[in-house]
Amino acid sequence: MDASEIVTGFIRAVERMEIDAAVATLAEDVSYENMPITPIVGRDAVGGALTAFLGPAEEVDWKILRQEAVGSVVFNERVDRFRIGTGWLELPVAGVFEVGPDGLITLWRDYFDLGSYQRQLTELTDAG
Amino acid sequence: MDASEIVTGFIRAVERMEIDAAVATLAEDVSYENMPITPIVGRDAVGGALTAFLGPAEEVDWKILRQEAVGSVVFNERVDRFRIGTGWLELPVAGVFEVGPDGLITLWRDYFDLGSYQRQLTELTDAG
Repeated sequence: MDASEIVTGFIRAVERMEIDAAVATLAEDVSYENMPITPIVGRDAVGGALTAFLGPAEEVDWKILRQEAVGSVVFNERVDRFRIGTGWLELPVAGVFEVGPDGLITLWRDYFDLGSYQRQLTELTDAG
Repeated sequence: MDASEIVTGFIRAVERMEIDAAVATLAEDVSYENMPITPIVGRDAVGGALTAFLGPAEEVDWKILRQEAVGSVVFNERVDRFRIGTGWLELPVAGVFEVGPDGLITLWRDYFDLGSYQRQLTELTDAG
């Protein structure tokens, strides 16, 4: 698998909400960087963060709009969608990933607007 | 010039605060999409937006941390820095650009956290 396929595999595991399978594609010392927030370092910590992040969702659909690999670096544009109750939270994201020589993801960095996420989360959980 | 050099040329013109030179690298029907905000379409409208955006800054320094072109698409990670008074506003950005066959930029899409921008702008203008 090339770097792009590895990243797509990770995203598909997240969509199935299979945290163990998702985390298995990450390096032991992976850095997960949501740009507005402090980085989360280490596979176990990222697994915990993913569990919390996906917690409110009953369904997860991360649309990859565009994805390109240049060597071990993968860029993508996504709309990360989370079904909460009867509504969908939709978050535009630009992601940057690095894949190590062993095929494990060492960096997962997402750029997005935190306010867009928080406002939708509040609306959907208040409505639920 | 390849697509990456064209995008770098645009960014360098922005840093010199030469709006006319920056806008000259854009297609007539360019779309400028700050993801948390409504897109701005058309070279003249983007020129106006850039003028307003750079207005509070006395110095502009957009650090390109990483930039890759895949054909006509350019992805980058940047820290867009603006000196306002004696302080610097620093905004992490992921950019996606498309360059047309005539060498003009047809899409400029930036992903960032609007709150990070607004909080720093308020702090720096209140302090000034």
